[in-house]
Amino acid sequence: MAESAAGRRIALGIAYRGGAYHGWQSQPDGCTVQDHLERALSSFAAQPVATLCAGRTDAGVHGLNQVVHLDAPVEREPFSWVRGTNRFLPPDIAVQWCRPVADHFHARASARGRRYRYVLLESPVRPALEQGLCGWVFRPLDGDAMRQAAAALIGEHDFSSFRAADCQAASPVKTMRAIEIQRRGAYWRFDFDASAFVYHMVRNIMGCLVAVGQGGRPPSWMAEVRDARSRSAAAPTFAAEGLYFVGPYYDAGHGLPEHTPAQDWLP
Amino acid sequence: MAESAAGRRIALGIAYRGGAYHGWQSQPDGCTVQDHLERALSSFAAQPVATLCAGRTDAGVHGLNQVVHLDAPVEREPFSWVRGTNRFLPPDIAVQWCRPVADHFHARASARGRRYRYVLLESPVRPALEQGLCGWVFRPLDGDAMRQAAAALIGEHDFSSFRAADCQAASPVKTMRAIEIQRRGAYWRFDFDASAFVYHMVRNIMGCLVAVGQGGRPPSWMAEVRDARSRSAAAPTFAAEGLYFVGPYYDAGHGLPEHTPAQDWLP
Repeated sequence: MAESAAGRRIALGIAYRGGAYHGWQSQPDGCTVQDHLERALSSFAAQPVATLCAGRTDAGVHGLNQVVHLDAPVEREPFSWVRGTNRFLPPDIAVQWCRPVADHFHARASARGRRYRYVLLESPVRPALEQGLCGWVFRPLDGDAMRQAAAALIGEHDFSSFRAADCQAASPVKTMRAIEIQRRGAYWRFDFDASAFVYHMVRNIMGCLVAVGQGGRPPSWMAEVRDARSRSAAAPTFAAEGLYFVGPYYDAGHGLPEHTPAQDWLP
Repeated sequence: MAESAAGRRIALGIAYRGGAYHGWQSQPDGCTVQDHLERALSSFAAQPVATLCAGRTDAGVHGLNQVVHLDAPVEREPFSWVRGTNRFLPPDIAVQWCRPVADHFHARASARGRRYRYVLLESPVRPALEQGLCGWVFRPLDGDAMRQAAAALIGEHDFSSFRAADCQAASPVKTMRAIEIQRRGAYWRFDFDASAFVYHMVRNIMGCLVAVGQGGRPPSWMAEVRDARSRSAAAPTFAAEGLYFVGPYYDAGHGLPEHTPAQDWLP
């Protein structure tokens, strides 16, 4: 029974389109991704199932490889959890993989870091086909200016300037490991890799990067915003539509996938 | 006034996500892309506006660069048609460009050819994030077998085997100029370039290519299906979700764009 997920802890990877849901975290209205996932898991297991995720996402934000763990109340093969749960999920949410994990594995606490991606259309015309799946600016962006500004955020910093008022994180101090800014055709892709993120952090950073990219602020302004440690120093929060939680990453020993097909979908 | 589009023929390029609409062609229920476009154009022009398109698309099929022409009842700068019409369109339909054209230009009759793309996810797990925007197979596909089968369709052929019963085309004889099959990660991209397409032609060809790709039929079967000139010889019609009307193309002298940003979005 080495490969079965019987009465033990399992981890699942979840992909979802966030537009129709009130964010990840369970709410009384039942309209969140977690609510749908737990209802589907409970239907498949015919018992109540509770999950804990690696990173809560906001309303409208998408997930490529959200990771949850749960203690399986019934014995099923890993792929049965995938196929069986997906039968009960709406078309824009799907479990991508299931792996047995050690009892001490914890989707949030075990994560060594998290990745987010922002996809931004630069065009005189608003998106249509990709509506709800990207942000949009109609004024051209200067990639070098944005990269220069982003460099001020690399390393360990107090991210209070980029933190929403209702953030529940214990500390605003996080380590930003990388910010990569690339362009493909009319789309910009911003990749963020950090130890953790405070609430609205990527969307608030995006607001500042776009202000710099459109020439409204010089690249050096980003360090000023960072050092102010005040939300009022930064630009307005950017739209949720273009934001993707790429997923958490763990020590390789846990053997969890860091990639799902939808990552190849994005520009 | 050389650049204005006053009281003369103009062409528009339209991008849309097809999932919410009953296809392109106007219907009494008013729920088609053409219905929405003509209502928006009429609102902007404050006069009834009728359009004629390059290629009607089916329910659920997407458009990257659908082209229409119309005789402008009011004088407006080209970009005003874009911006002004988009204000009245739903979020998943947007005019991408507007160009003045010669009075004899005709979106359908002037087209030298048309391009379609099919995007197909190959994965044990169904799509979620990209739901409604791609087809899906869970059994692996053999690219070389599909390319070999597709070669039987290149050139001028009677495409009756791939033609839906209610097709309104005058003739089933069309010229297939190219079929390109590429893979990016978990996604396959099938690009079709032909003089014109009969009704359901790409979806019927896709059904056959997938049958070959999954080993259910040998590559040589495609020529048999082609020569049968009978719809019953071919595989079932494949899902509409993964199909994109890339757009028509014209003599370069018309000066019409063949590319819209959404083309860079797709895998």
